[in-house]
Amino acid sequence: MAEKKQKQKRRRPDSDDESELPFKNILKPDPAILETLKQLVLATNPKSSAAASSSSSSKPLTLSDLNLSAKCREVSDLSLSSVQSEIETQILQIAHSILSGNGFAFQVPSRASSNQLYVPELDRIVLKDKTTLRPFAHVSSVRKSTITTKILALIHQLCLKSIHVTKRDLFYTDVKLFQDQTQSDAVLDDVACMLGCTRSSLNVIASEKGVVVGRLIFSDNGDMIDCTKMGMGGKAIPPNIDRVGDMKSDALFILLVEKDAAYIRLAEDRFYNRFPCIIVTAKGQPDVATRLFLRKMKMELKLPVLALVDSDPYGLKILSVYGCGSKNMSYDSANLTTPDIKWLGIRPSDLDKYKIPEQCRLPMTEQDIKTGKDLLEEDFVKKNPGWVEELTLMVKTKQKAEIQALSTFGFQYLSEVYLPLKLQQKDWL
Amino acid sequence: MAEKKQKQKRRRPDSDDESELPFKNILKPDPAILETLKQLVLATNPKSSAAASSSSSSKPLTLSDLNLSAKCREVSDLSLSSVQSEIETQILQIAHSILSGNGFAFQVPSRASSNQLYVPELDRIVLKDKTTLRPFAHVSSVRKSTITTKILALIHQLCLKSIHVTKRDLFYTDVKLFQDQTQSDAVLDDVACMLGCTRSSLNVIASEKGVVVGRLIFSDNGDMIDCTKMGMGGKAIPPNIDRVGDMKSDALFILLVEKDAAYIRLAEDRFYNRFPCIIVTAKGQPDVATRLFLRKMKMELKLPVLALVDSDPYGLKILSVYGCGSKNMSYDSANLTTPDIKWLGIRPSDLDKYKIPEQCRLPMTEQDIKTGKDLLEEDFVKKNPGWVEELTLMVKTKQKAEIQALSTFGFQYLSEVYLPLKLQQKDWL
Repeated sequence: MAEKKQKQKRRRPDSDDESELPFKNILKPDPAILETLKQLVLATNPKSSAAASSSSSSKPLTLSDLNLSAKCREVSDLSLSSVQSEIETQILQIAHSILSGNGFAFQVPSRASSNQLYVPELDRIVLKDKTTLRPFAHVSSVRKSTITTKILALIHQLCLKSIHVTKRDLFYTDVKLFQDQTQSDAVLDDVACMLGCTRSSLNVIASEKGVVVGRLIFSDNGDMIDCTKMGMGGKAIPPNIDRVGDMKSDALFILLVEKDAAYIRLAEDRFYNRFPCIIVTAKGQPDVATRLFLRKMKMELKLPVLALVDSDPYGLKILSVYGCGSKNMSYDSANLTTPDIKWLGIRPSDLDKYKIPEQCRLPMTEQDIKTGKDLLEEDFVKKNPGWVEELTLMVKTKQKAEIQALSTFGFQYLSEVYLPLKLQQKDWL
Repeated sequence: MAEKKQKQKRRRPDSDDESELPFKNILKPDPAILETLKQLVLATNPKSSAAASSSSSSKPLTLSDLNLSAKCREVSDLSLSSVQSEIETQILQIAHSILSGNGFAFQVPSRASSNQLYVPELDRIVLKDKTTLRPFAHVSSVRKSTITTKILALIHQLCLKSIHVTKRDLFYTDVKLFQDQTQSDAVLDDVACMLGCTRSSLNVIASEKGVVVGRLIFSDNGDMIDCTKMGMGGKAIPPNIDRVGDMKSDALFILLVEKDAAYIRLAEDRFYNRFPCIIVTAKGQPDVATRLFLRKMKMELKLPVLALVDSDPYGLKILSVYGCGSKNMSYDSANLTTPDIKWLGIRPSDLDKYKIPEQCRLPMTEQDIKTGKDLLEEDFVKKNPGWVEELTLMVKTKQKAEIQALSTFGFQYLSEVYLPLKLQQKDWL
């Protein structure tokens, strides 16, 4: 204890030895990097002057702007009362059909992958317009049409009460009928498609797991939340996007982080104070709440989104779910996806560029390599030549690395060198 | 469809039919229930007058108060500078040992289950005082002693910088040495034990997943957080308990919820405004951050803790981890556990009492039944006759049920009838 502090120069841990940190010496002063970021915001949103919560809107491309040969089905956010009257309309039609002797059947949009289409102009998967008949008076569909009716009744009840429930709650209202939760979950997506609304319009929510911290103010169920004042833990992303509003921000970009560990590092270092940004993570696989929240931020604040994910096929896959949707919910892709996410890092080419030591790289498994090759065939990868090049390199070198691998240069290398340099060099794809 | 709904009293959703809801009719007015809760607070904390963040302390029993035959080892929260000087002391001793020709070895406390002890007076598992020698000059321990030295050096570095990192970060500082993360993780626990401090004192944190909402104000890394103003998403529980402080509350109890879905229901209904409480969940398995946070609330606010878990062996197991610790971190049980948690529900006897329909109960698997029987042998269950009775009933009926099963009576049955009635009837064990 006695000789504690004075030795510090001699026994300095190696990661403190700044001259040896790769690239630390080429970092410019922060104002120069900030200037780069301001240009990025301008490029992202030409009409708005600098960053701010702007209401200007250069109308984004929609499905109807395109002259597609196939007809496509898309859903939109509906108010509770619209959902309610949509349900009532459908039930009235069915009652009419029964009374006129034509029986009881639902027209259900097909959500099969044969009915899906990747639209490069929109950079997301959409659903084509095939539907299937679900008659009550047929042994193969009598259960499913009964389940559909029950779900419609339950959603109607949620509209009347104006409350949110989880899929699990729905299942438990009639276990005998649903038998297992996959059945009520599947019909729930059918119902959203039938009614032409998003699943969140149905007031059925998934459990949230994302967190957000940084230069963002928003309202959650009427409470104003200032995400610069959320300590290190951050604010839990609300499960119900319809009660989120009034977003304001002076950030220059949104930093989308795959994993919790990197998020914690950036939150503790208050990275958002050095480079004004909003930091968000779903802690792994993107959940619906985080995807909706990210999209809402991007749309309302018109900020560029930079993604920090592991350098492995799953990192890219996660990026793709945020960016162009999952096949499972393609009917809702317009509302769930965030266009134009930039791949900041960790990219396969970073491994050599940043001299990540061999022992911090992991060999890819057979499954990893297969997933990587499959991704190379996906439209959303193919349309970005830079991504193709990176992914090809990954599959060729058969090496992957986690964001955490940067800790080999010291715990704060991520926030103090890697990210600032990435920003300075506009090193995103 | 035709003959479906009108049988049910003419299309009114059944859960709206309040007279039919089990026990709704015996609910007393809220002020009567609040009176019950005030008595509970007084019983929990006889010295404090009503609920408030009180600083009075009826000194809790500690290990040293007991005259145990076996000597026990416990750790405590140490400041960063104490951890630092403790490390320096150990290294100096070792240097001295080397210089005097006795070689280089660590004395490492054993964390094996043979060295663990359940102390009924404290209601938690503690570690006995056995240690093992870890010499550098022996082929079987040369790697482990090298790893131990490296971890000590890294922790020393964290102390100097005053930052927090994750276990994953630690691992990546020297992948070649650690080989896989289980090795660095295990030595990290050894090091905490050796230094006599908690793992959180080492500034190594686990990723957080808990959330809190309700009548609590606290500071997170210097920011004041009001948990009544956190919307429906709630506040993410900070990963680093040492930066949490200034807890204030006018709650009458803490409601510990196993699962996210129930948490969401209670947060949306703002249950904490009707019955002043703090609602906390780790969304499943308790993580270290949530356990530390719960304990801190209980200790500083002196509030009773009521637990709402699934009626299955895992629900009870989760309760036990909060209550008396996990075997893996028994050396730290004093700091991680929250004494005297009451089992509010869903209890096996509730299934019949609340008339949960057969189809909402699930049959227990062979594994469930085995886990249940094993739990009956555990000391922490045996010391509570009410728990033994409930668990015996569960194993006998071979039935389990989730909290969500209450949705069968309507989505808000949990917040509007079940919980208020539980509180009114003081129905906890």
